[in-house]
Amino acid sequence: MSDTWLPSLKTDTPQAGFELAVKLSRVGVKYTQPSDEVRSSLRSDYDHDTTQLIASSHVIAVHFQTVAAANNWWR
Amino acid sequence: MSDTWLPSLKTDTPQAGFELAVKLSRVGVKYTQPSDEVRSSLRSDYDHDTTQLIASSHVIAVHFQTVAAANNWWR
Amino acid sequence: MSDTWLPSLKTDTPQAGFELAVKLSRVGVKYTQPSDEVRSSLRSDYDHDTTQLIASSHVIAVHFQTVAAANNWWR
Amino acid sequence: MSDTWLPSLKTDTPQAGFELAVKLSRVGVKYTQPSDEVRSSLRSDYDHDTTQLIASSHVIAVHFQTVAAANNWWR
Amino acid sequence: MSDTWLPSLKTDTPQAGFELAVKLSRVGVKYTQPSDEVRSSLRSDYDHDTTQLIASSHVIAVHFQTVAAANNWWR
Amino acid sequence: MSDTWLPSLKTDTPQAGFELAVKLSRVGVKYTQPSDEVRSSLRSDYDHDTTQLIASSHVIAVHFQTVAAANNWWR
Repeated sequence: MSDTWLPSLKTDTPQAGFELAVKLSRVGVKYTQPSDEVRSSLRSDYDHDTTQLIASSHVIAVHFQTVAAANNWWR
Repeated sequence: MSDTWLPSLKTDTPQAGFELAVKLSRVGVKYTQPSDEVRSSLRSDYDHDTTQLIASSHVIAVHFQTVAAANNWWR
Repeated sequence: MSDTWLPSLKTDTPQAGFELAVKLSRVGVKYTQPSDEVRSSLRSDYDHDTTQLIASSHVIAVHFQTVAAANNWWR
Repeated sequence: MSDTWLPSLKTDTPQAGFELAVKLSRVGVKYTQPSDEVRSSLRSDYDHDTTQLIASSHVIAVHFQTVAAANNWWR
Repeated sequence: MSDTWLPSLKTDTPQAGFELAVKLSRVGVKYTQPSDEVRSSLRSDYDHDTTQLIASSHVIAVHFQTVAAANNWWR
Repeated sequence: MSDTWLPSLKTDTPQAGFELAVKLSRVGVKYTQPSDEVRSSLRSDYDHDTTQLIASSHVIAVHFQTVAAANNWWR
Protein backbone atom coordinates (compact mmCIF):
# COMPACT_ATOMS: atom_id res chain seq x y z
CA MET A 1 0.00 0.00 0.00
CA SER A 2 2.10 2.84 -1.31
CA ASP A 3 -0.65 5.48 -1.26
CA THR A 4 -1.04 7.94 1.54
CA TRP A 5 -4.09 6.76 3.40
CA LEU A 6 -3.36 8.22 6.86
CA PRO A 7 -2.10 11.78 6.64
CA SER A 8 -3.17 12.68 10.18
CA LEU A 9 -5.02 11.47 13.26
CA LYS A 10 -6.74 14.84 13.65
CA THR A 11 -10.42 15.02 12.88
CA ASP A 12 -12.91 17.85 13.16
CA THR A 13 -15.44 15.97 15.24
CA PRO A 14 -15.67 12.92 17.53
CA GLN A 15 -17.84 11.24 14.94
CA ALA A 16 -15.25 11.70 12.20
CA GLY A 17 -12.75 10.29 14.70
CA PHE A 18 -14.91 7.23 15.19
CA GLU A 19 -15.08 6.75 11.43
CA LEU A 20 -11.31 7.00 11.27
CA ALA A 21 -11.14 4.27 13.92
CA VAL A 22 -13.38 2.09 11.74
CA LYS A 23 -11.02 2.72 8.83
CA LEU A 24 -7.94 1.85 10.88
CA SER A 25 -9.48 -1.43 12.02
CA ARG A 26 -10.19 -2.35 8.38
CA VAL A 27 -6.73 -1.36 7.20
CA GLY A 28 -5.32 -3.61 9.93
CA VAL A 29 -7.05 -6.54 8.24
CA LYS A 30 -5.85 -5.35 4.82
CA TYR A 31 -2.22 -5.44 5.86
CA THR A 32 -2.65 -9.11 6.81
CA GLN A 33 -4.84 -10.07 3.83
CA PRO A 34 -4.01 -7.58 1.04
CA SER A 35 -6.21 -9.10 -1.66
CA ASP A 36 -9.41 -7.07 -2.17
CA GLU A 37 -10.93 -10.07 -3.88
CA VAL A 38 -10.25 -12.44 -1.01
CA ARG A 39 -11.48 -9.97 1.61
CA SER A 40 -14.71 -9.44 -0.34
CA SER A 41 -15.24 -13.18 -0.64
CA LEU A 42 -14.83 -13.55 3.12
CA ARG A 43 -17.36 -10.87 4.02
CA SER A 44 -20.21 -13.34 4.50
CA ASP A 45 -18.06 -15.23 7.01
CA TYR A 46 -18.33 -12.48 9.58
CA ASP A 47 -21.16 -10.09 8.81
CA HIS A 48 -23.80 -12.49 10.16
CA ASP A 49 -21.59 -13.88 12.95
CA THR A 50 -22.23 -11.95 16.14
CA THR A 51 -19.00 -13.13 17.78
CA GLN A 52 -17.01 -11.60 14.94
CA LEU A 53 -19.17 -8.48 14.82
CA ILE A 54 -18.45 -7.92 18.52
CA ALA A 55 -14.74 -8.58 17.91
CA SER A 56 -14.76 -6.01 15.11
CA SER A 57 -16.42 -3.49 17.40
CA HIS A 58 -13.67 -4.21 19.94
CA VAL A 59 -10.90 -3.35 17.48
CA ILE A 60 -12.69 -0.13 16.58
CA ALA A 61 -12.87 0.72 20.29
CA VAL A 62 -9.11 0.30 20.68
CA HIS A 63 -8.40 2.54 17.71
CA PHE A 64 -10.96 5.08 18.91
CA GLN A 65 -8.95 5.42 22.14
CA THR A 66 -5.92 6.37 20.06
CA VAL A 67 -7.77 8.79 17.79
CA ALA A 68 -9.55 10.42 20.74
CA ALA A 69 -6.26 10.95 22.57
CA ALA A 70 -4.72 12.39 19.41
CA ASN A 71 -7.52 14.94 19.31
CA ASN A 72 -7.31 15.70 23.02
CA TRP A 73 -10.77 14.16 23.22
CA TRP A 74 -12.19 17.07 21.16
CA ARG A 75 -12.42 19.13 24.35
CA MET B 1 -24.67 6.89 8.53
CA SER B 2 -24.93 10.53 7.55
CA ASP B 3 -26.67 11.75 10.71
CA THR B 4 -24.82 13.31 13.59
CA TRP B 5 -24.87 10.66 16.27
CA LEU B 6 -21.76 11.68 18.24
CA PRO B 7 -21.59 15.43 18.78
CA SER B 8 -19.37 15.18 21.85
CA LEU B 9 -17.77 12.81 24.33
CA LYS B 10 -18.76 15.06 27.24
CA THR B 11 -21.47 13.82 29.55
CA ASP B 12 -22.91 15.29 32.72
CA THR B 13 -22.44 12.20 34.85
CA PRO B 14 -20.38 8.97 34.92
CA GLN B 15 -23.56 7.03 34.35
CA ALA B 16 -24.40 9.00 31.20
CA GLY B 17 -20.81 8.33 30.15
CA PHE B 18 -21.31 4.61 30.64
CA GLU B 19 -24.43 4.76 28.52
CA LEU B 20 -22.49 6.57 25.81
CA ALA B 21 -19.94 3.73 25.96
CA VAL B 22 -22.77 1.24 25.44
CA LYS B 23 -23.89 3.26 22.43
CA LEU B 24 -20.39 3.40 20.95
CA SER B 25 -20.01 -0.36 21.25
CA ARG B 26 -23.29 -0.85 19.39
CA VAL B 27 -22.42 1.65 16.69
CA GLY B 28 -19.17 -0.23 16.17
CA VAL B 29 -21.22 -3.28 15.23
CA LYS B 30 -23.49 -1.14 13.05
CA TYR B 31 -20.56 0.09 10.95
CA THR B 32 -19.67 -3.53 10.17
CA GLN B 33 -23.25 -4.77 9.70
CA PRO B 34 -25.32 -1.72 8.68
CA SER B 35 -28.63 -3.53 8.13
CA ASP B 36 -31.05 -2.94 11.03
CA GLU B 37 -33.01 -5.96 9.88
CA VAL B 38 -30.01 -8.30 9.94
CA ARG B 39 -28.81 -7.04 13.31
CA SER B 40 -32.27 -7.57 14.81
CA SER B 41 -32.44 -11.09 13.41
CA LEU B 42 -29.08 -11.89 14.98
CA ARG B 43 -30.04 -10.70 18.46
CA SER B 44 -30.98 -14.16 19.70
CA ASP B 45 -27.52 -15.39 18.70
CA TYR B 46 -25.83 -13.47 21.48
CA ASP B 47 -28.29 -12.37 24.12
CA HIS B 48 -28.42 -15.82 25.71
CA ASP B 49 -24.76 -16.65 25.05
CA THR B 50 -22.69 -15.73 28.07
CA THR B 51 -19.42 -15.75 26.13
CA GLN B 52 -20.78 -13.08 23.84
CA LEU B 53 -22.40 -11.14 26.67
CA ILE B 54 -19.02 -10.98 28.41
CA ALA B 55 -17.38 -9.95 25.12
CA SER B 56 -19.96 -7.16 24.73
CA SER B 57 -19.25 -5.99 28.26
CA HIS B 58 -15.56 -5.94 27.35
CA VAL B 59 -16.11 -3.61 24.40
CA ILE B 60 -18.19 -1.31 26.60
CA ALA B 61 -15.32 -1.26 29.12
CA VAL B 62 -12.84 -0.15 26.45
CA HIS B 63 -15.11 2.66 25.29
CA PHE B 64 -15.82 3.67 28.89
CA GLN B 65 -12.06 4.24 29.34
CA THR B 66 -12.17 6.69 26.45
CA VAL B 67 -15.31 8.49 27.60
CA ALA B 68 -14.05 8.71 31.19
CA ALA B 69 -10.75 10.22 30.06
CA ALA B 70 -12.63 12.70 27.84
CA ASN B 71 -14.54 13.85 30.91
CA ASN B 72 -11.46 13.96 33.11
CA TRP B 73 -13.09 11.13 35.04
CA TRP B 74 -15.86 13.52 36.20
CA ARG B 75 -13.58 14.72 39.00
CA MET C 1 -32.22 1.41 33.86
CA SER C 2 -33.55 4.74 35.08
CA ASP C 3 -32.06 4.58 38.59
CA THR C 4 -28.82 6.24 39.52
CA TRP C 5 -26.36 3.40 39.86
CA LEU C 6 -23.11 5.24 39.13
CA PRO C 7 -22.94 8.56 40.95
CA SER C 8 -19.15 8.74 40.92
CA LEU C 9 -15.96 6.86 40.08
CA LYS C 10 -14.36 7.96 43.35
CA THR C 11 -13.85 5.33 46.02
CA ASP C 12 -12.21 5.51 49.42
CA THR C 13 -9.88 2.59 48.88
CA PRO C 14 -8.34 0.54 46.05
CA GLN C 15 -10.40 -2.42 47.17
CA ALA C 16 -13.64 -0.47 46.91
CA GLY C 17 -12.43 0.59 43.47
CA PHE C 18 -11.94 -3.02 42.48
CA GLU C 19 -15.45 -3.81 43.65
CA LEU C 20 -16.76 -0.93 41.56
CA ALA C 21 -14.93 -2.44 38.57
CA VAL C 22 -16.70 -5.75 39.24
CA LYS C 23 -20.00 -3.89 39.30
CA LEU C 24 -19.27 -2.06 36.04
CA SER C 25 -18.43 -5.33 34.30
CA ARG C 26 -21.75 -6.80 35.42
CA VAL C 27 -23.73 -3.73 34.43
CA GLY C 28 -22.14 -3.98 30.98
CA VAL C 29 -23.77 -7.40 30.62
CA LYS C 30 -27.05 -6.04 31.98
CA TYR C 31 -27.26 -3.38 29.28
CA THR C 32 -27.03 -6.13 26.64
CA GLN C 33 -29.29 -8.64 28.43
CA PRO C 34 -31.60 -6.57 30.67
CA SER C 35 -33.71 -9.47 31.97
CA ASP C 36 -32.75 -10.42 35.53
CA GLU C 37 -34.49 -13.73 35.00
CA VAL C 38 -32.54 -14.60 31.87
CA ARG C 39 -29.22 -13.57 33.39
CA SER C 40 -29.88 -15.72 36.46
CA SER C 41 -30.77 -18.69 34.29
CA LEU C 42 -27.50 -18.29 32.40
CA ARG C 43 -25.31 -18.22 35.49
CA SER C 44 -24.47 -21.92 35.33
CA ASP C 45 -23.23 -21.43 31.76
CA TYR C 46 -20.19 -19.49 32.91
CA ASP C 47 -19.50 -19.99 36.59
CA HIS C 48 -17.92 -23.40 36.03
CA ASP C 49 -16.32 -22.52 32.69
CA THR C 50 -12.77 -21.36 33.25
CA THR C 51 -12.52 -19.70 29.84
CA GLN C 52 -15.44 -17.46 30.74
CA LEU C 53 -14.21 -16.89 34.29
CA ILE C 54 -10.91 -15.66 32.86
CA ALA C 55 -12.79 -13.49 30.35
CA SER C 56 -14.84 -11.99 33.20
CA SER C 57 -11.66 -11.25 35.12
CA HIS C 58 -10.34 -9.52 32.00
CA VAL C 59 -13.31 -7.17 31.80
CA ILE C 60 -12.90 -6.34 35.49
CA ALA C 61 -9.23 -5.55 34.81
CA VAL C 62 -10.14 -3.08 32.07
CA HIS C 63 -12.66 -1.30 34.29
CA PHE C 64 -10.20 -1.30 37.19
CA GLN C 65 -7.78 0.67 34.99
CA THR C 66 -10.46 3.32 34.56
CA VAL C 67 -11.46 3.44 38.22
CA ALA C 68 -7.83 3.54 39.37
CA ALA C 69 -7.06 6.44 37.04
CA ALA C 70 -10.17 8.27 38.25
CA ASN C 71 -8.85 7.99 41.79
CA ASN C 72 -5.31 8.98 40.82
CA TRP C 73 -4.36 5.43 41.81
CA TRP C 74 -5.21 6.25 45.48
CA ARG C 75 -1.75 7.77 45.86
CA MET D 1 -15.11 -10.90 50.68
CA SER D 2 -15.17 -8.69 53.73
CA ASP D 3 -11.44 -8.82 54.51
CA THR D 4 -9.03 -6.17 53.40
CA TRP D 5 -7.07 -7.76 50.61
CA LEU D 6 -6.01 -4.65 48.67
CA PRO D 7 -4.78 -1.92 50.99
CA SER D 8 -2.69 -0.19 48.32
CA LEU D 9 -1.41 -0.43 44.76
CA LYS D 10 2.06 0.65 45.85
CA THR D 11 4.80 -1.92 45.82
CA ASP D 12 8.50 -1.67 46.57
CA THR D 13 9.67 -3.24 43.32
CA PRO D 14 8.40 -3.96 39.78
CA GLN D 15 8.48 -7.66 40.59
CA ALA D 16 6.25 -7.20 43.64
CA GLY D 17 3.99 -5.16 41.35
CA PHE D 18 3.83 -8.03 38.89
CA GLU D 19 2.89 -10.38 41.70
CA LEU D 20 0.16 -7.98 42.75
CA ALA D 21 -1.13 -8.07 39.16
CA VAL D 22 -1.23 -11.88 39.36
CA LYS D 23 -3.23 -11.57 42.58
CA LEU D 24 -5.67 -9.08 41.06
CA SER D 25 -6.32 -11.36 38.10
CA ARG D 26 -7.11 -14.23 40.46
CA VAL D 27 -9.35 -12.13 42.67
CA GLY D 28 -11.26 -11.13 39.54
CA VAL D 29 -12.12 -14.78 39.03
CA LYS D 30 -12.98 -15.15 42.70
CA TYR D 31 -15.58 -12.38 42.55
CA THR D 32 -17.34 -14.29 39.75
CA GLN D 33 -16.90 -17.78 41.25
CA PRO D 34 -16.55 -17.27 45.03
CA SER D 35 -16.39 -20.94 45.99
CA ASP D 36 -12.84 -22.03 46.83
CA GLU D 37 -13.91 -25.61 46.35
CA VAL D 38 -15.29 -25.05 42.87
CA ARG D 39 -12.28 -23.02 41.75
CA SER D 40 -9.92 -25.75 42.97
CA SER D 41 -11.91 -28.41 41.13
CA LEU D 42 -11.67 -26.37 37.92
CA ARG D 43 -7.91 -25.95 38.07
CA SER D 44 -7.19 -28.89 35.76
CA ASP D 45 -9.48 -27.32 33.15
CA TYR D 46 -7.03 -24.53 32.43
CA ASP D 47 -3.55 -25.31 33.74
CA HIS D 48 -2.76 -27.62 30.82
CA ASP D 49 -4.71 -25.61 28.24
CA THR D 50 -2.37 -23.20 26.49
CA THR D 51 -5.20 -21.03 25.19
CA GLN D 52 -6.33 -20.39 28.74
CA LEU D 53 -2.78 -19.98 30.04
CA ILE D 54 -2.23 -17.27 27.43
CA ALA D 55 -5.56 -15.66 28.36
CA SER D 56 -4.53 -15.66 32.03
CA SER D 57 -1.24 -14.01 31.12
CA HIS D 58 -3.24 -11.39 29.21
CA VAL D 59 -5.31 -10.48 32.27
CA ILE D 60 -2.13 -10.19 34.34
CA ALA D 61 -0.71 -7.86 31.68
CA VAL D 62 -3.72 -5.55 31.92
CA HIS D 63 -3.48 -5.37 35.70
CA PHE D 64 0.28 -4.86 35.50
CA GLN D 65 -0.37 -1.72 33.44
CA THR D 66 -2.50 -0.38 36.27
CA VAL D 67 -0.06 -1.31 39.03
CA ALA D 68 2.90 0.07 37.09
CA ALA D 69 1.13 3.40 36.53
CA ALA D 70 0.19 3.53 40.22
CA ASN D 71 3.88 3.22 41.06
CA ASN D 72 4.98 5.73 38.44
CA TRP D 73 6.67 2.77 36.74
CA TRP D 74 9.11 2.51 39.68
CA ARG D 75 11.22 5.24 38.11
CA MET E 1 17.17 -12.35 16.89
CA SER E 2 20.47 -10.58 17.37
CA ASP E 3 19.97 -7.92 14.70
CA THR E 4 18.74 -4.46 15.44
CA TRP E 5 15.19 -4.40 14.15
CA LEU E 6 13.72 -1.67 16.38
CA PRO E 7 16.05 1.30 16.68
CA SER E 8 13.29 3.75 17.58
CA LEU E 9 9.53 4.19 17.95
CA LYS E 10 9.68 7.55 16.16
CA THR E 11 8.22 7.74 12.67
CA ASP E 12 7.81 10.65 10.31
CA THR E 13 4.11 10.12 9.68
CA PRO E 14 1.09 8.39 11.27
CA GLN E 15 1.03 5.99 8.36
CA ALA E 16 4.64 4.97 8.92
CA GLY E 17 3.68 4.53 12.57
CA PHE E 18 0.85 2.22 11.59
CA GLU E 19 3.24 0.19 9.49
CA LEU E 20 5.60 -0.05 12.46
CA ALA E 21 2.65 -1.36 14.51
CA VAL E 22 2.06 -4.03 11.85
CA LYS E 23 5.74 -4.97 12.10
CA LEU E 24 5.65 -5.16 15.90
CA SER E 25 2.62 -7.46 15.81
CA ARG E 26 4.45 -9.79 13.41
CA VAL E 27 7.64 -9.76 15.44
CA GLY E 28 5.56 -10.73 18.46
CA VAL E 29 4.59 -13.90 16.63
CA LYS E 30 8.20 -14.44 15.54
CA TYR E 31 9.45 -14.44 19.13
CA THR E 32 7.03 -17.27 19.91
CA GLN E 33 7.55 -19.20 16.66
CA PRO E 34 11.03 -18.26 15.40
CA SER E 35 11.12 -20.59 12.37
CA ASP E 36 10.52 -18.67 9.13
CA GLU E 37 9.67 -21.94 7.46
CA VAL E 38 7.01 -22.89 10.00
CA ARG E 39 5.46 -19.42 9.98
CA SER E 40 5.26 -19.48 6.17
CA SER E 41 3.63 -22.88 6.22
CA LEU E 42 1.01 -21.63 8.66
CA ARG E 43 0.05 -18.59 6.60
CA SER E 44 -2.92 -20.31 4.95
CA ASP E 45 -4.29 -21.12 8.41
CA TYR E 46 -5.16 -17.51 9.12
CA ASP E 47 -5.21 -15.43 5.96
CA HIS E 48 -8.64 -16.70 4.95
CA ASP E 49 -9.98 -16.97 8.50
CA THR E 50 -11.85 -13.78 9.39
CA THR E 51 -11.70 -14.46 13.13
CA GLN E 52 -7.92 -14.52 12.96
CA LEU E 53 -7.75 -11.56 10.58
CA ILE E 54 -9.78 -9.53 13.10
CA ALA E 55 -7.52 -10.76 15.92
CA SER E 56 -4.46 -9.67 13.94
CA SER E 57 -6.00 -6.25 13.40
CA HIS E 58 -6.58 -6.07 17.16
CA VAL E 59 -2.90 -6.65 17.95
CA ILE E 60 -1.93 -3.98 15.43
CA ALA E 61 -4.35 -1.59 17.16
CA VAL E 62 -2.69 -2.17 20.53
CA HIS E 63 0.77 -1.52 19.11
CA PHE E 64 -0.49 1.52 17.22
CA GLN E 65 -1.55 3.02 20.58
CA THR E 66 2.04 2.66 21.77
CA VAL E 67 3.63 4.03 18.61
CA ALA E 68 1.18 6.95 18.46
CA ALA E 69 1.92 7.90 22.07
CA ALA E 70 5.66 7.65 21.38
CA ASN E 71 5.21 10.17 18.58
CA ASN E 72 2.97 12.44 20.63
CA TRP E 73 0.24 11.50 18.16
CA TRP E 74 2.14 13.34 15.39
CA ARG E 75 0.59 16.60 16.58
CA MET F 1 9.57 -17.78 42.22
CA SER F 2 11.85 -16.37 44.87
CA ASP F 3 14.58 -15.07 42.55
CA THR F 4 14.76 -11.51 41.35
CA TRP F 5 13.72 -11.65 37.74
CA LEU F 6 12.39 -8.10 37.28
CA PRO F 7 14.71 -5.54 38.86
CA SER F 8 13.52 -2.68 36.65
CA LEU F 9 11.34 -1.75 33.69
CA LYS F 10 14.07 0.46 32.26
CA THR F 11 15.85 -0.71 29.14
CA ASP F 12 18.51 0.90 27.00
CA THR F 13 16.66 0.52 23.72
CA PRO F 14 13.11 -0.03 22.40
CA GLN F 15 14.20 -3.45 21.18
CA ALA F 16 15.40 -4.48 24.64
CA GLY F 17 12.05 -3.19 25.90
CA PHE F 18 10.22 -5.40 23.44
CA GLU F 19 12.24 -8.37 24.61
CA LEU F 20 11.33 -7.53 28.19
CA ALA F 21 7.66 -7.52 27.13
CA VAL F 22 8.14 -11.00 25.66
CA LYS F 23 9.65 -12.11 28.97
CA LEU F 24 6.78 -10.62 30.99
CA SER F 25 4.21 -12.41 28.85
CA ARG F 26 6.00 -15.72 29.44
CA VAL F 27 6.34 -15.13 33.17
CA GLY F 28 2.59 -14.48 33.27
CA VAL F 29 2.07 -18.03 32.03
CA LYS F 30 4.64 -19.35 34.49
CA TYR F 31 2.77 -17.91 37.47
CA THR F 32 -0.31 -19.87 36.39
CA GLN F 33 1.53 -23.06 35.37
CA PRO F 34 4.77 -23.11 37.39
CA SER F 35 6.02 -26.50 36.22
CA ASP F 36 8.81 -26.14 33.65
CA GLU F 37 8.18 -29.71 32.60
CA VAL F 38 4.48 -29.19 31.94
CA ARG F 39 5.06 -25.93 30.06
CA SER F 40 7.65 -27.61 27.84
CA SER F 41 5.31 -30.50 27.11
CA LEU F 42 2.59 -28.04 26.07
CA ARG F 43 4.77 -26.12 23.63
CA SER F 44 3.58 -28.06 20.59
CA ASP F 45 0.00 -27.15 21.49
CA TYR F 46 0.49 -23.53 20.54
CA ASP F 47 3.59 -23.02 18.43
CA HIS F 48 1.87 -24.27 15.27
CA ASP F 49 -1.55 -22.83 16.15
CA THR F 50 -1.90 -19.41 14.55
CA THR F 51 -4.79 -18.41 16.82
CA GLN F 52 -2.58 -18.90 19.85
CA LEU F 53 0.44 -17.31 18.19
CA ILE F 54 -1.67 -14.20 17.55
CA ALA F 55 -2.94 -14.30 21.15
CA SER F 56 0.66 -14.49 22.40
CA SER F 57 1.59 -11.52 20.25
CA HIS F 58 -1.37 -9.67 21.80
CA VAL F 59 -0.10 -10.21 25.34
CA ILE F 60 3.35 -9.01 24.31
CA ALA F 61 1.73 -5.88 22.86
CA VAL F 62 0.00 -5.10 26.15
CA HIS F 63 3.22 -5.48 28.11
CA PHE F 64 5.13 -3.45 25.52
CA GLN F 65 2.75 -0.54 26.23
CA THR F 66 3.76 -0.71 29.88
CA VAL F 67 7.48 -1.01 29.22
CA ALA F 68 7.41 1.78 26.63
CA ALA F 69 5.63 4.12 29.05
CA ALA F 70 8.12 3.22 31.79
CA ASN F 71 10.90 4.32 29.46
CA ASN F 72 9.11 7.46 28.34
CA TRP F 73 8.97 5.81 24.92
CA TRP F 74 12.78 6.08 24.66
CA ARG F 75 12.39 9.65 23.47
